[in-house]
Amino acid sequence: MAPKALNIGMIGYGFMGRAHTNGYKRVNDFFDLPLRPVLKAACARSAEKIQAFADQWGYESIETDWRKLVERKDIDAVDICVPNNLHKEIALACAANGKMILCEKPLAMNVAEGEEMCQAVEKAKVVNTVWYNYRRVPAVTMAKQLIDEGRLGKIFHYRANFLQDWTISEDLPQGGNALWRLDVEAAGSGVTGDLLAHCIDTAVWLNGKVSDVTAVTETFVKERMHNLTGKKEKVGIDDACAFLCHFQNGSLGLFESTRYARGHKALYTFEINGEHGSLKWDLHDLHRLEFFDYKDEGKLRGWRSIHVTDGEHPYMNKWWVPGLQIGYEHSFVHHVRDFLEGAAKGEPCGPTFRDALETQKICDAVLASGKDRSWKSI
Amino acid sequence: MAPKALNIGMIGYGFMGRAHTNGYKRVNDFFDLPLRPVLKAACARSAEKIQAFADQWGYESIETDWRKLVERKDIDAVDICVPNNLHKEIALACAANGKMILCEKPLAMNVAEGEEMCQAVEKAKVVNTVWYNYRRVPAVTMAKQLIDEGRLGKIFHYRANFLQDWTISEDLPQGGNALWRLDVEAAGSGVTGDLLAHCIDTAVWLNGKVSDVTAVTETFVKERMHNLTGKKEKVGIDDACAFLCHFQNGSLGLFESTRYARGHKALYTFEINGEHGSLKWDLHDLHRLEFFDYKDEGKLRGWRSIHVTDGEHPYMNKWWVPGLQIGYEHSFVHHVRDFLEGAAKGEPCGPTFRDALETQKICDAVLASGKDRSWKSI
Amino acid sequence: MAPKALNIGMIGYGFMGRAHTNGYKRVNDFFDLPLRPVLKAACARSAEKIQAFADQWGYESIETDWRKLVERKDIDAVDICVPNNLHKEIALACAANGKMILCEKPLAMNVAEGEEMCQAVEKAKVVNTVWYNYRRVPAVTMAKQLIDEGRLGKIFHYRANFLQDWTISEDLPQGGNALWRLDVEAAGSGVTGDLLAHCIDTAVWLNGKVSDVTAVTETFVKERMHNLTGKKEKVGIDDACAFLCHFQNGSLGLFESTRYARGHKALYTFEINGEHGSLKWDLHDLHRLEFFDYKDEGKLRGWRSIHVTDGEHPYMNKWWVPGLQIGYEHSFVHHVRDFLEGAAKGEPCGPTFRDALETQKICDAVLASGKDRSWKSI
Amino acid sequence: MAPKALNIGMIGYGFMGRAHTNGYKRVNDFFDLPLRPVLKAACARSAEKIQAFADQWGYESIETDWRKLVERKDIDAVDICVPNNLHKEIALACAANGKMILCEKPLAMNVAEGEEMCQAVEKAKVVNTVWYNYRRVPAVTMAKQLIDEGRLGKIFHYRANFLQDWTISEDLPQGGNALWRLDVEAAGSGVTGDLLAHCIDTAVWLNGKVSDVTAVTETFVKERMHNLTGKKEKVGIDDACAFLCHFQNGSLGLFESTRYARGHKALYTFEINGEHGSLKWDLHDLHRLEFFDYKDEGKLRGWRSIHVTDGEHPYMNKWWVPGLQIGYEHSFVHHVRDFLEGAAKGEPCGPTFRDALETQKICDAVLASGKDRSWKSI
Repeated sequence: MAPKALNIGMIGYGFMGRAHTNGYKRVNDFFDLPLRPVLKAACARSAEKIQAFADQWGYESIETDWRKLVERKDIDAVDICVPNNLHKEIALACAANGKMILCEKPLAMNVAEGEEMCQAVEKAKVVNTVWYNYRRVPAVTMAKQLIDEGRLGKIFHYRANFLQDWTISEDLPQGGNALWRLDVEAAGSGVTGDLLAHCIDTAVWLNGKVSDVTAVTETFVKERMHNLTGKKEKVGIDDACAFLCHFQNGSLGLFESTRYARGHKALYTFEINGEHGSLKWDLHDLHRLEFFDYKDEGKLRGWRSIHVTDGEHPYMNKWWVPGLQIGYEHSFVHHVRDFLEGAAKGEPCGPTFRDALETQKICDAVLASGKDRSWKSI
Repeated sequence: MAPKALNIGMIGYGFMGRAHTNGYKRVNDFFDLPLRPVLKAACARSAEKIQAFADQWGYESIETDWRKLVERKDIDAVDICVPNNLHKEIALACAANGKMILCEKPLAMNVAEGEEMCQAVEKAKVVNTVWYNYRRVPAVTMAKQLIDEGRLGKIFHYRANFLQDWTISEDLPQGGNALWRLDVEAAGSGVTGDLLAHCIDTAVWLNGKVSDVTAVTETFVKERMHNLTGKKEKVGIDDACAFLCHFQNGSLGLFESTRYARGHKALYTFEINGEHGSLKWDLHDLHRLEFFDYKDEGKLRGWRSIHVTDGEHPYMNKWWVPGLQIGYEHSFVHHVRDFLEGAAKGEPCGPTFRDALETQKICDAVLASGKDRSWKSI
Repeated sequence: MAPKALNIGMIGYGFMGRAHTNGYKRVNDFFDLPLRPVLKAACARSAEKIQAFADQWGYESIETDWRKLVERKDIDAVDICVPNNLHKEIALACAANGKMILCEKPLAMNVAEGEEMCQAVEKAKVVNTVWYNYRRVPAVTMAKQLIDEGRLGKIFHYRANFLQDWTISEDLPQGGNALWRLDVEAAGSGVTGDLLAHCIDTAVWLNGKVSDVTAVTETFVKERMHNLTGKKEKVGIDDACAFLCHFQNGSLGLFESTRYARGHKALYTFEINGEHGSLKWDLHDLHRLEFFDYKDEGKLRGWRSIHVTDGEHPYMNKWWVPGLQIGYEHSFVHHVRDFLEGAAKGEPCGPTFRDALETQKICDAVLASGKDRSWKSI
Repeated sequence: MAPKALNIGMIGYGFMGRAHTNGYKRVNDFFDLPLRPVLKAACARSAEKIQAFADQWGYESIETDWRKLVERKDIDAVDICVPNNLHKEIALACAANGKMILCEKPLAMNVAEGEEMCQAVEKAKVVNTVWYNYRRVPAVTMAKQLIDEGRLGKIFHYRANFLQDWTISEDLPQGGNALWRLDVEAAGSGVTGDLLAHCIDTAVWLNGKVSDVTAVTETFVKERMHNLTGKKEKVGIDDACAFLCHFQNGSLGLFESTRYARGHKALYTFEINGEHGSLKWDLHDLHRLEFFDYKDEGKLRGWRSIHVTDGEHPYMNKWWVPGLQIGYEHSFVHHVRDFLEGAAKGEPCGPTFRDALETQKICDAVLASGKDRSWKSI
């Protein structure tokens, strides 16, 4: 039976707009699903830019006012792909109009906003999800499976980092379309919301809730030209952030992110150590999962590099053949797949707004600890 | 200006049918091109199977007789995705009908067939290409660029292998839809045409023509149940093949492929050593290129692992951001991209049939040498 | 000219006793030096055990009372290879007797002891060094050279960890000869003094002094059978410890060590990120140094794996030929080499007691912060 | 009980002279053995050079005529560390004088010489061994154990290469003390005897005898200044050599060596693929063994990197602690250990001359095949 149409309204057209749209367009080619996303409308303030985007990707229509898009009867689900400071307002309007919501991460500018958003979607009973896409990289999904199967036993350590190097130059400006991530007004925070939030989402998913944190934050370049004011302005974001934490299960956590780690383009790694085994993953080779199994015969123990491309690996029976890797964009295809499966049944697709609020709480605590140099309970 | 439609007729619906179709569907989302492939018709003997494929991927119509497809006026280009023993006949018909041809590799069952096919397309002046897709993995394309820039200097060595492990069990049958690659009647050869042909195409592209070869071939499992006869039949293919060769530039070559290398799903590696530097690549981590530059300062020399995901790397300015890898399927998208660029101008897209004939010559010589244990000139 | 004898008195015969002795015995085979260590006497409380050790390694005589050894006229230098709680008393006696001192790390049980030791050796003007051996792994020495040459530019980040997994079992006892490292009375601390101290020594050497720290410490197994009392006793050491810090040069530091990281036998890694480049090292492959040079041509940038076995690499012109690696024990040979070079001229061989006191200060601050959960200035 | 002295007479003082001597000096420090090598005499034509060597390493006396050394009553075992063209004559004299022999590899200039040597030692019943040291790298020894335990099952493939890059420059001369390996008169062959011989010895040890071979050899630089004649002379050695072979167990072999592989200092790798598993090893990281076990649970299969530093790994219970690697030179220590164990009991220590003759046969066949381009039976 042919899948039913699910009309998508996309707000935004940047990097994430492209990645999500690609997910909508690819998912039914590879997965048998009850729903098929239809690219109904794309929206941005600039008619010219959004029309070009719509033409490139095949959106049927455009809007220049997100409120209109949100109110359109022919839209089933809204994808919020705009800077963080706009998430809340749009999400509340979507909920009020009964639209499903796929919101880019982080959920909000802070916990207060996030809580308001959670209450809105829960009250309106609209299906909602937040694009923490790395959960659906097959190797990461498989890590979750192995942990849930008890293969690691009691957990002692979790460590993760997200290292980039693209803002080292002092000549890089802040703000505006391309660089809103450096502008605290638009982004809320720097690497904490942009990068650490990914690490935290995965960590909580794999290892459970965090109890408390202590953090250090740093802004290496104190002033940058601002694209909106044309003047040198104080930089309000955190360029780097690291924190220590306890998880509720008694394990210790160690997290770090920065945009000043020369040589790392987008290195997101995590490692988790348990009584019976350990797991490691690295976004730079996202199709591999490293596994150490203490139950292996003693003299033969070693870290195994699992090439996560077999039919029995998560999501992989729908792609190519063993040995042939998929890439970054496929995590979004998988997210859409699970969202559609859930939406058809009215079931949530994690991380929901409520799940993402947990990450927001930790981000807020980390930023607060970075300011006053004390431990914070979550 | 919107790209012009190029109507595709696809013959076949297997692994390669899917990979090529995905290429047609994605290419215009990411690349600005003068042409846009339209999935006009898909063809196979089984109406049921081809209809399911057409529904899944969005082909507008189906055919069950490839001759009809080839003669349809609304088809501009035919994609030949059928077992090797059918390539020649279909290609000749395409040429006779003035269709562009995208033919799955290897070109033909042997050089005689291949020569006939070359003459047909050259006489008919139809645009033609053969799907040796690995040339368009960005790291491989970049290897070509570095060699052409003279960074390796005089070449001494080229080595490549393609290792798999999926036919070790004696219980695996041969023949029929899924396993025609094990049936010498359909495939012409075993690993030589299936795997070594890829290694050879890349090698000739990167390092020039081969002068002579000496080979060893082996069939480890001598008899297998045949899916078409229902009986145990002699296995006619080569399970493993290795050869030594001289290239015309004076360098030595060493090639190996097998389906009996436990632990390797689809390991295709090559390495090339020159006076000034060396390059290595591995399909299992296809987004990386290893480079050794003797011109580096002495004490700092080492193999560099280049994560081929930057905007200045081949094809990569159209995908995501630095650090985010693409996968196997993107090589086909790039092949389609280059084919469309060429087709719009009436220019060839390598490897053409004539280019692929060079690989066929080497394959034939290798198989002959494997039989009579003597060196063969190419 | 034949090197002059330097008579060594060794106190202790454990793992480190063997490693140091091997250093003394090998150094003149490979390095041309003004002095030659002579294994004059070995000392331990058990006559039987120390005689066996002396026979195995070739010490000329034994003592069972370290005070006697320290007072012997025929001893030039004393090597202190006993548990941490004995370092101070022996070192003070050595200074009083005008002996050179090679003291196992960490320097002392705490800063107060360490300060007393520093004053004693400085007053007595005896040559002294502490066995932080990793400085003399050639790849680590080379990292120091590259940093001193300014190749990394301004430093932003330093991270290090030392991960082991040998104390996970709750059945492992504490205390006594083999397991004094688990007994807080003998060791002073757990992983902080045993493992982190190594990371800190290297860090301060490579990246300068630390300003302040915040730490978390954990004891996963709260009680263990004690080999000396025969009863279950509270475990007083830290099983795991992690800390964040600022260096005086403005960079951020992140350190972690544990004996509960399943799959890591003795993984000591560090990474340092600067404006122009980055360096990484891993004890598990100690003969390699990873280097990222931002000055490389853009499209060719990548982490280089430098196989530190060339004649132009530190210490390596005295060993084998390029490509042939040395191992763990050679770091001690190099330490002896530099100690002898210095001793002949009356020059210090870093880390001196005073250098090692800096590490002790950080360890003490880390342990204090782990207790009261606040930042500590150094 | 103290070990009995075994008086060593060393002929030669080059790279191998140092490596063997180090083995003699270290072995009793680490292993409990019935015999202890005593460095009785060292011999070379130049009194000045051999005296310096003897002083450096502690040989008690020197000789300048190897015949004298061989006839000395106080010498128990002779170590032949001279160019290949002198092996036979010295070995015959040793046998005639009833000396044990430790002969540097390859055994001889050719099979005829080797056969004569075998007959001499067998007739004289003197203990003999050839320094194919890589058998005693713990990871390689462990590979042998795993194969003997049947863990790989039926073997399909064996591949090995030994790649260097130190003779690429045309300005490098040939001949004389340092460069006799480039002089066919002294060396007999180039990479075949120097490098491939190592690969072959390991292969035959691990995978059994070879049936037949076909080879290609190449001399890239045709003329080099000769250090003995002072003139440009034809280069008679093979710069590169590759061959294909069948093993008697039905598996296929693929071997390559060269001194023109830019970026490889001394890369010796082998891989063996069997029905149930595969093994890989690389001299550049000699303390690791890669193992793929098909018996692992399907979704968890992957290559394991075994850090061969545990007490249960071959030879490793005598060195340091898990995680701390040993290096190249330790393979010689282990060879001496096994030689002494055997010598005490009058038992052979493989590879014996007879074992090494098997390697010589294959080398001769490879060189002959390289000349006349035909398959050769062994």
